[in-house]
Amino acid sequence: MSYGELAAERLSEIAEMSEAGPGVTRLPWTPEHRRALDIISDWMRDAGLDVSLDAAGTLIGRTPGMSGRPALLLGSHQDSVRSGGRFDGIMGVAIACLAVRRLHKEGVRLPFAVEVLAFADEEGVRFPTALIGPRALAGRFDPAVLDMKDAQGVSMRQAMQGFGLDPDGIPALMRQREEVVGYLEAHIEQGPVLEAQGRSLGVVTAICGISRYAVAFEGETGHAGTVPMAGRRDALVAAARFVAAMSDAATAMEDCRATVGQIDVKPGVVNAIPSEVRLTLELRAPSDENRLGLRSKAMHLVQEIAVQAGVAVRIEQTYEQPAVVCDPGIRAALSRAMTASAMSAIAIPSGATHDASAMADLCPVGMLFTRCKGGLSHRPDEFASAADMEDAVQVLANAIKIMALERPSKWAD
Amino acid sequence: MSYGELAAERLSEIAEMSEAGPGVTRLPWTPEHRRALDIISDWMRDAGLDVSLDAAGTLIGRTPGMSGRPALLLGSHQDSVRSGGRFDGIMGVAIACLAVRRLHKEGVRLPFAVEVLAFADEEGVRFPTALIGPRALAGRFDPAVLDMKDAQGVSMRQAMQGFGLDPDGIPALMRQREEVVGYLEAHIEQGPVLEAQGRSLGVVTAICGISRYAVAFEGETGHAGTVPMAGRRDALVAAARFVAAMSDAATAMEDCRATVGQIDVKPGVVNAIPSEVRLTLELRAPSDENRLGLRSKAMHLVQEIAVQAGVAVRIEQTYEQPAVVCDPGIRAALSRAMTASAMSAIAIPSGATHDASAMADLCPVGMLFTRCKGGLSHRPDEFASAADMEDAVQVLANAIKIMALERPSKWAD
Repeated sequence: MSYGELAAERLSEIAEMSEAGPGVTRLPWTPEHRRALDIISDWMRDAGLDVSLDAAGTLIGRTPGMSGRPALLLGSHQDSVRSGGRFDGIMGVAIACLAVRRLHKEGVRLPFAVEVLAFADEEGVRFPTALIGPRALAGRFDPAVLDMKDAQGVSMRQAMQGFGLDPDGIPALMRQREEVVGYLEAHIEQGPVLEAQGRSLGVVTAICGISRYAVAFEGETGHAGTVPMAGRRDALVAAARFVAAMSDAATAMEDCRATVGQIDVKPGVVNAIPSEVRLTLELRAPSDENRLGLRSKAMHLVQEIAVQAGVAVRIEQTYEQPAVVCDPGIRAALSRAMTASAMSAIAIPSGATHDASAMADLCPVGMLFTRCKGGLSHRPDEFASAADMEDAVQVLANAIKIMALERPSKWAD
Repeated sequence: MSYGELAAERLSEIAEMSEAGPGVTRLPWTPEHRRALDIISDWMRDAGLDVSLDAAGTLIGRTPGMSGRPALLLGSHQDSVRSGGRFDGIMGVAIACLAVRRLHKEGVRLPFAVEVLAFADEEGVRFPTALIGPRALAGRFDPAVLDMKDAQGVSMRQAMQGFGLDPDGIPALMRQREEVVGYLEAHIEQGPVLEAQGRSLGVVTAICGISRYAVAFEGETGHAGTVPMAGRRDALVAAARFVAAMSDAATAMEDCRATVGQIDVKPGVVNAIPSEVRLTLELRAPSDENRLGLRSKAMHLVQEIAVQAGVAVRIEQTYEQPAVVCDPGIRAALSRAMTASAMSAIAIPSGATHDASAMADLCPVGMLFTRCKGGLSHRPDEFASAADMEDAVQVLANAIKIMALERPSKWAD
């Protein structure tokens, strides 16, 4: 059985650790999480790693007997969205275990320890926060989140205690920069680019920064029959011009995205001119410079369109997250590993946030994307093939060797 | 006291016949309707008319002693929207009574009878139908509407019976064409055109026809970060281009209107590409040819935009009402009356539907619009000045004289 087939078999097995219903629903600090950790522990031990569970619920498999050495961290998250797929997150844990197993079986000796991390919560489905595991390692844990409650009124503190964890131990999880070589995460792309290019793998250049805005256009309502077109101050016509213009602006800039996902109209009646439109605008770009350039364009366009339509407009930033540029050394190791296996090293930005986003506060990060069918994710039919996962195990294992062998002074100092 | 001041005083008095709350709320076949009819009966008797209530609840004041003669019908509706103003509808009844009073006081003898009609229900607020009074006169009464229920579960039949009416008598209300000279209605403009042109009155050219459509764009959702702009099938971007294009298309055609009043987006999440957009499109034009031209343009644009955006689209007509062209003879009489009073005879289309729309199935119709403040209607601050109403009484009275004196053979045969 190939490593890819083994990955597929393991992901099928662990997919059963789910709430009832379509697809996979595995939330953090639940019985499903517990049963998943039993399986992941087996994967880790099978890879020659010592297994422990930290105070945040991150399962850690570490090379034995290298307690003084810095560690290369691998991994991803064990949790899923509701009715999600069997690859998002957990595939990165499985691929990491198999890559380490492969190195272990080959008898490769590394100048650094390796740790595989299975984070409890990246999706943020159960509580209105996420990434507590990597944030704890990076020293960015905020104790206030422990008081957040899930839909059943259970606080995060209670959920963790019920899982046998001691939340008071979380601050002590913080790693020092010198204890860590870097963080390397394999993940399904969750987008259509690799499939469109006919490639199994891609090396992530950067994790996109995000800006979100609440935009409100205010015009004047009136009877759809009695008010001539020329005198109208139609908030929806202004909003529509803005939606179209932002789509055009983002399309013209490399790797940028602009999305209007929500729109609400008042009074919302078939025969009344809309007086008020509220919409959300989300901008993403792998470079903060491009994202801020697109932001300037949005600010300019929204004013220009509002003035021309005779409506007032307010635009307010509701969220901002800077881009995370992937480490050039880790990118180079991944690219060389791909070339060594006769694959072209495709560079691709990550439009979505990952555990690596939070790990970047601790150390250099890198990501390896695996093609997923139809670019689909967060649904039961999410799929990555055994052949592509085979490629991923091979490239991840070889990239670790390259990092160890090519520039030991950089990684092992 | 001028006729305009008298109109203002009478409208203030009858505005009290309202449910509690801001503005005027007077629904058909209610105690407020009853008390309003007591007042309107006084207005009619004061104008020298005989008063009766027909089976649909239309209060009728008719010249006495002319039972064999055809009648010129004047009037409008007594009801209001919820929290409406004190002019919409009822002003037309007041102006008609005062114009007839004026002719009566002047001792003018007409070759036709005059009837002032105060229709029960034009707004369609209480029951999901309207215009039962004029439809009954035009022989277009549909008995099925009597089973419609209001929000309290009271059927229209019960409401009318509770008002002392016999709904079974409605079919017999139908008038013969030869019994009627025409129908002439004064009404506030409910739009901003006369105010913008600095005119108190306008002669209506036509009542706009209406086409309504349900438009559904179906694209594909996806993660707002992971799906590049180039591969998107964003239903909202397509819809936005259509909204803007229809506004431009209607603006380019004389007296046409295109309004998108409702829009709903799925999944409606800040970071998901919209997969589905449903919107309403309403087209209005005083000429059916122009409305159908705008319809063709909409059909063409929606397909073109959908193809370009890679989304599917369905467009479905949900309502259609042809335009009513006002009678050239009545228009000419109104225009001559305005010129005689040193006003320019402004021609203006009616974007809204009126009792005259339904009366057009019986006889030639004409309408006289009165300027309203800010173009506002259907709200408590709806306002027409005493001076403008003075103009309206004068022009309506003189138009009736012109109709009688200039072309008696046409009107009185």
